[in-house]
Amino acid sequence: MADGGCAAINTKIEEGEGGYILEDVPHLTDYLPSLLTYPNPLQDNPAYSVVKQYFVDVDDTVAQKIVVHKNGDRGIHFRRAGPRQKVYFKSDEVHACIVTCGGLCPGLNTVIREIVCGLHYMYGVSKIIGIDGGYMGFYSKNTVTLTPKVVNDIHKRGGTVLGTSRGGHDTSKIVDSIQDRGINQVYVIGGDGTQKGAAVIYEEVRRRGLKVSVAGIPKTIDNDIPVIDRSFGFDTAVEEAQRAINAAHVEAESTENGIGVVKLMGRYSGFIAMYATLASRDVDCCLIPESPFFLEGKGGLFQFIRKRLKENGHMVIVIAEGAGQDLLTESMQSMGQQDASGNKQLQDVGFWISHRIKVHTFADFGLTVMIVADPTYMIRAIPGNASDNVYCTLLAQSAVHGAMAGYTGFTCGPVNGRHSYIPFNRITEKQNKVVITDRMWARLLSSTNQPSFL
Amino acid sequence: MADGGCAAINTKIEEGEGGYILEDVPHLTDYLPSLLTYPNPLQDNPAYSVVKQYFVDVDDTVAQKIVVHKNGDRGIHFRRAGPRQKVYFKSDEVHACIVTCGGLCPGLNTVIREIVCGLHYMYGVSKIIGIDGGYMGFYSKNTVTLTPKVVNDIHKRGGTVLGTSRGGHDTSKIVDSIQDRGINQVYVIGGDGTQKGAAVIYEEVRRRGLKVSVAGIPKTIDNDIPVIDRSFGFDTAVEEAQRAINAAHVEAESTENGIGVVKLMGRYSGFIAMYATLASRDVDCCLIPESPFFLEGKGGLFQFIRKRLKENGHMVIVIAEGAGQDLLTESMQSMGQQDASGNKQLQDVGFWISHRIKVHTFADFGLTVMIVADPTYMIRAIPGNASDNVYCTLLAQSAVHGAMAGYTGFTCGPVNGRHSYIPFNRITEKQNKVVITDRMWARLLSSTNQPSFL
Amino acid sequence: MADGGCAAINTKIEEGEGGYILEDVPHLTDYLPSLLTYPNPLQDNPAYSVVKQYFVDVDDTVAQKIVVHKNGDRGIHFRRAGPRQKVYFKSDEVHACIVTCGGLCPGLNTVIREIVCGLHYMYGVSKIIGIDGGYMGFYSKNTVTLTPKVVNDIHKRGGTVLGTSRGGHDTSKIVDSIQDRGINQVYVIGGDGTQKGAAVIYEEVRRRGLKVSVAGIPKTIDNDIPVIDRSFGFDTAVEEAQRAINAAHVEAESTENGIGVVKLMGRYSGFIAMYATLASRDVDCCLIPESPFFLEGKGGLFQFIRKRLKENGHMVIVIAEGAGQDLLTESMQSMGQQDASGNKQLQDVGFWISHRIKVHTFADFGLTVMIVADPTYMIRAIPGNASDNVYCTLLAQSAVHGAMAGYTGFTCGPVNGRHSYIPFNRITEKQNKVVITDRMWARLLSSTNQPSFL
Amino acid sequence: MADGGCAAINTKIEEGEGGYILEDVPHLTDYLPSLLTYPNPLQDNPAYSVVKQYFVDVDDTVAQKIVVHKNGDRGIHFRRAGPRQKVYFKSDEVHACIVTCGGLCPGLNTVIREIVCGLHYMYGVSKIIGIDGGYMGFYSKNTVTLTPKVVNDIHKRGGTVLGTSRGGHDTSKIVDSIQDRGINQVYVIGGDGTQKGAAVIYEEVRRRGLKVSVAGIPKTIDNDIPVIDRSFGFDTAVEEAQRAINAAHVEAESTENGIGVVKLMGRYSGFIAMYATLASRDVDCCLIPESPFFLEGKGGLFQFIRKRLKENGHMVIVIAEGAGQDLLTESMQSMGQQDASGNKQLQDVGFWISHRIKVHTFADFGLTVMIVADPTYMIRAIPGNASDNVYCTLLAQSAVHGAMAGYTGFTCGPVNGRHSYIPFNRITEKQNKVVITDRMWARLLSSTNQPSFL
Repeated sequence: MADGGCAAINTKIEEGEGGYILEDVPHLTDYLPSLLTYPNPLQDNPAYSVVKQYFVDVDDTVAQKIVVHKNGDRGIHFRRAGPRQKVYFKSDEVHACIVTCGGLCPGLNTVIREIVCGLHYMYGVSKIIGIDGGYMGFYSKNTVTLTPKVVNDIHKRGGTVLGTSRGGHDTSKIVDSIQDRGINQVYVIGGDGTQKGAAVIYEEVRRRGLKVSVAGIPKTIDNDIPVIDRSFGFDTAVEEAQRAINAAHVEAESTENGIGVVKLMGRYSGFIAMYATLASRDVDCCLIPESPFFLEGKGGLFQFIRKRLKENGHMVIVIAEGAGQDLLTESMQSMGQQDASGNKQLQDVGFWISHRIKVHTFADFGLTVMIVADPTYMIRAIPGNASDNVYCTLLAQSAVHGAMAGYTGFTCGPVNGRHSYIPFNRITEKQNKVVITDRMWARLLSSTNQPSFL
Repeated sequence: MADGGCAAINTKIEEGEGGYILEDVPHLTDYLPSLLTYPNPLQDNPAYSVVKQYFVDVDDTVAQKIVVHKNGDRGIHFRRAGPRQKVYFKSDEVHACIVTCGGLCPGLNTVIREIVCGLHYMYGVSKIIGIDGGYMGFYSKNTVTLTPKVVNDIHKRGGTVLGTSRGGHDTSKIVDSIQDRGINQVYVIGGDGTQKGAAVIYEEVRRRGLKVSVAGIPKTIDNDIPVIDRSFGFDTAVEEAQRAINAAHVEAESTENGIGVVKLMGRYSGFIAMYATLASRDVDCCLIPESPFFLEGKGGLFQFIRKRLKENGHMVIVIAEGAGQDLLTESMQSMGQQDASGNKQLQDVGFWISHRIKVHTFADFGLTVMIVADPTYMIRAIPGNASDNVYCTLLAQSAVHGAMAGYTGFTCGPVNGRHSYIPFNRITEKQNKVVITDRMWARLLSSTNQPSFL
Repeated sequence: MADGGCAAINTKIEEGEGGYILEDVPHLTDYLPSLLTYPNPLQDNPAYSVVKQYFVDVDDTVAQKIVVHKNGDRGIHFRRAGPRQKVYFKSDEVHACIVTCGGLCPGLNTVIREIVCGLHYMYGVSKIIGIDGGYMGFYSKNTVTLTPKVVNDIHKRGGTVLGTSRGGHDTSKIVDSIQDRGINQVYVIGGDGTQKGAAVIYEEVRRRGLKVSVAGIPKTIDNDIPVIDRSFGFDTAVEEAQRAINAAHVEAESTENGIGVVKLMGRYSGFIAMYATLASRDVDCCLIPESPFFLEGKGGLFQFIRKRLKENGHMVIVIAEGAGQDLLTESMQSMGQQDASGNKQLQDVGFWISHRIKVHTFADFGLTVMIVADPTYMIRAIPGNASDNVYCTLLAQSAVHGAMAGYTGFTCGPVNGRHSYIPFNRITEKQNKVVITDRMWARLLSSTNQPSFL
Repeated sequence: MADGGCAAINTKIEEGEGGYILEDVPHLTDYLPSLLTYPNPLQDNPAYSVVKQYFVDVDDTVAQKIVVHKNGDRGIHFRRAGPRQKVYFKSDEVHACIVTCGGLCPGLNTVIREIVCGLHYMYGVSKIIGIDGGYMGFYSKNTVTLTPKVVNDIHKRGGTVLGTSRGGHDTSKIVDSIQDRGINQVYVIGGDGTQKGAAVIYEEVRRRGLKVSVAGIPKTIDNDIPVIDRSFGFDTAVEEAQRAINAAHVEAESTENGIGVVKLMGRYSGFIAMYATLASRDVDCCLIPESPFFLEGKGGLFQFIRKRLKENGHMVIVIAEGAGQDLLTESMQSMGQQDASGNKQLQDVGFWISHRIKVHTFADFGLTVMIVADPTYMIRAIPGNASDNVYCTLLAQSAVHGAMAGYTGFTCGPVNGRHSYIPFNRITEKQNKVVITDRMWARLLSSTNQPSFL
């Protein structure tokens, strides 16, 4: 119902020739039609004086469909991100806040830094605060004053300087806080659930008729957000995962019939596991949530392990944390009564699979060593690499330009390489997943020669 | 004339509705119309059995124009890369060769590895050789046998296992060698000049009516190749450049009125300097070939240096190797007679600018320390990072799919994120450059607050 | 009894003035008194021609006691390592073998490489073999031929190219294999247990009256070998541990009342945990096997955690794998019947302590996040850093010089910075442990301000 | 004369049995005999309550001679560093200052941090200031207040937070400033020249009869300070140099007859070059100041280069910045009149040797590529590694314990692994150099097989 309502409110569809569709984002004037506009202060910024046509053409849209046929439909488009000629906030009127929610992700601090610097240097905004410790901080904590000086070096550190939290929050109290403090731009950095929360905040803000822009910046280290090309931090995560795979490979190689098991992030999608496997080339088998597998019998994992050990004397398995959940649940149930904490660790798929392999293969192979490397926390906590830092800069500036231009209830990100404004519902209505009937997964299968388990 | 001819031969233009243009690449059947076709062996590959519609639709094309208006023209498109239903070579008929030319670039070995593994595992090809030491190796050196085993670990090493060279070569002797050895697929990895050479080799091959596919893989650490999204190795280079910038920053900060000068790659284009500056945020001034600057007087570099030193007590300057060439030439001339070697070093823009700044500022600032860091060789020689490794894999596989499908005289690379086949002339007719009237450069100016020198 | 015998055989004590004691190592001539000697081939080596007094003076000994009083006793000394004027093997008579046992340790491949290169380049030895997969490989596997070319690049890789194994072996079969294959120099790289094994092999060799030198190279990533200054790989391990501590710190800081738990290697000694804590300065509490602690009540861990969380809002705990074993055993017992696998993970001290803290603190602190980072495998598997590489070179060369000079039943390592030959029993009779009544531990307590739990 | 006087004042020789000599350091009571003493506040510090015999025995001395003969002389000893039972300053009486001089060195910030934390946490001192920008900052700049909070994270950054400078200073003005500000503990971190300066400051302080302890902390990335085992930052520098050597190796290998030249730090001593070469094993020739070489003729460098290129097709040369200065000067002179700046770069030994090799070898080898990597600034500017961080902690604490205990005119550092107090003159009277008639250099020659140039 809420989602349905959300979708209904968010959807601004425009159609054009040749099957052209624009899925537009809401604007403050949708419900506050008489808002004043002001010239964009960027036009007086010396840095931009060299730029011809600095402002995004009001008609610019970004095509989602990039592989096309000569006479095919043009498909869905999104509004292009970037600065507009007119803005809906005066510089000294803006009171912006930034909140980070959910798990850590490389680049978080860069996004915070660049929202602050973007607002300050591009739009002359000086009232910017940080919400401490996620959504709940809106009503349970003091805020933090953010200036370019405060955030100057934070992009070199992992984590989030604002702190974060998971779990429930009270939308009504948040909007009360926004209203009471006089905040009129809300930047929400977080994953799927957080963006859903932001959509609901936007709806409540709209219901109350407040002149408050709500801008989402999608965050997921797992890259499981649809529509956008990739999520920030993903590149850094794949890079860092190489270290764990390499270590597992060295261990496995040094031991007779050594098997290295590396558990990587990815509860619902296996992008990190897949890309890390493709980049490394040391992996013999990659297991992800999207590709169900089975252990015993012909074509099963155990058979493959025995084959590979016989051929090479060692192997490396990468497993995403959400892979094989059905098998794991089954295992748990068959074990019967267990104390809570014992279960807890067994529910870790890395331990579970290692345990199962160990029990199974021990009989045949005199000496099989299990190695479980779980670099999750070491990956999450590093700062963004150069590529992610540049990406985060563009992302933050897109959000700032959008909010200043009066857009609201939107999230942003690159679509086929161009930053765009995307309605909340398009990125929260489903998760991006590895399509195992797609060529990227075929590439992986081809590089590992693992069974397809079909 | 040669270029004109080249363009004429290469150009296969097709037009469609709504201003749709397809710039197609040549095909062996353009001049050998009666070639036999064979079913693509991938259809029997277990790794691909799960993939629905594995083969690229013959009509798939990739749009170059991604920011569009509702009723605007659709613009130029390229043929989508990927495996075709029919191939023009039998597996045991293929005799492929790979050659690397020009300077080192992170990812070179990954491209070599993946061409070999792609041909071997996807198409069952077993005759693959490497040309030793660049184009000249075709006629002056023995070749190297390449198998998946030989190339297995090379992606973890920098450089190129095939060796490389720069400079002139004899097209006729190369094609003689191709003909004499019975080579029928030529994979050429190299920069601008190398791709031009490949275009001429293709023309000569065509003139002789040989069934030989010539496929180019564009390589330039500077990212100065047009049409494609980015060149391989660039991402790694920008990442590694952070280390030098960081060191220069530490040195500058620790010294009163310390100035750190970092010279980065980029003879004709400043992409590495620009992205490294944007990613780092420790740079006070970024000088690139595309943005002319001047030293003295109002709005000049010296004035900015003095201002920044007064404010902060230190600064970091990033300069691309090709920046300020006009000023440098002028300096050289005014110095008059010099022995060759002395000139040589002064022609290094890093030394030159450091020298000029030193002479200029010494009077005012009691103690100015110049630091010149030139990490060029340390950047070129590292292996590709995870992101570049995955990219190189796709690039190599695209080339292999294209050659097997009978395309020739083409280069490949991602266009708006989708790998495409691109006519040689489109990537050699001009260089990609930083557009200083574009917003990315404005972002940089805004982040450094340096003068625009206009 | 065996140890007693061992000690009796090994002990060659010599006394001198001022309380001087020399604990010498065995020599082949102890039981083969009429062996021939040969001039050391190093004297004709051009690399050494510049070296004055290249050979170690026959009387050189290394003092173990370095802090002395004006008129105090001089204490124990060891024979100085290095090349001797006379050797007991002709170059073409030598048939050397190398075996690696136990867990991985950074620098293993460097030691292997330098034994091979030392024998080859310094002594002209060409018959060198590697035993595959640890002690058992002597009788259950084929050997590997080792040449300078084969080992050329292995120091850049982690692990051991010879493979390794743990667990029991049959001394008699090993010495049979040594005798049957005509091996006359045995280089044994391994930890405590392995060195004990080497001592027994030496005794058996001696009992059989074989002209076989048995040289041990002590390996323990935990640095728990007595007498020597530090063990190879330790420096690299402490360095690498910083990464995990840093990640835990970032995670903890980003979460309200976040506690980062890092489990580090160290079953019986806490050197890695202690040095990693001292080097990092981000650790709030370091728990090691040598320093018993308790959880509840005044002065206990829980009280300290609550205090630190109240002060700082987050904390990092480093725990060596062998810390708190008494508490853990108690916990296990109180839980009663458990399936094997559940127990297994709980017996991991990192999980156990996290679980206990979680249960305890949950009531007070609304939201405490536990983080368990176990970088063990990532630390073990990396190659040695520069410092360890140089150390491994000296260690390997010391062993080679010793064996060539006819010493046997010895191990080697730096004593107060000078490489020495040490009787087996001195390094196996007890383990090196952190002395918690020593100043280094006091330094740690002072830097973390953690309770002393006394 | 000054040095002579210095030596005279510093020398406190004590003799004992068996040739025992103690070279003691000055003490405030040498010229202020009636100073009061106080109990060391450490005795009430909970962290130290577990430590038995925490205080250094007043008679503890450290032997410099470690390789001894049974009845040989015992040689020179130094006073052991560490806390004393009695101190000569009350906690609230101390007014300490810290100054850093000369070039950057990894670990500088750790030393600063640990002096501050040591004084604060161990001795309850709260008045600690930093001198800004080296010696001259005493009289030309404001000071910086240092607290544990201010220095908390600085050890993770390269450089020095206090800034530094080189060059002349006015001793009299410095001591005026010390006297005027009421400073009574001076910690001087710097190299050879800086320590000489500290010796003169100490003499002036003594001449004026001030109760001021002057403690030196020796700093030299080149490891050229005598007596002590190694200098801080050296380990980190050798590690980091591996990166440049590796890059040069990759470049050289990828090019026909490629020669990689890496210039490393070391104006007067070649320790970094030697250890980096030994650790890397990719170097074909290592040139250092201590080992003169020649270019032409039999046994010369050019002959060796030609030989190595013929064998391997590529080579890597490491050259310390001070190597071959005689040859370089000769080259300069023979070139005659040159403008200053041209000369400047040619005086860089890396450029010079590359130029000479290029000119020489061009005729024979069609294509020789010169590569000059100078990672000096990238090495100097990184933070200390774990090993250096622990070392810096001990060093700083030694200095603090010494000053509190009333010692003055001393420097400190590890002698055979034990931290000691050393008279200034012993570390400034000569430089530590690579002894090319020693076995470490022979090891290098043996590993590179380069000529000895003798």
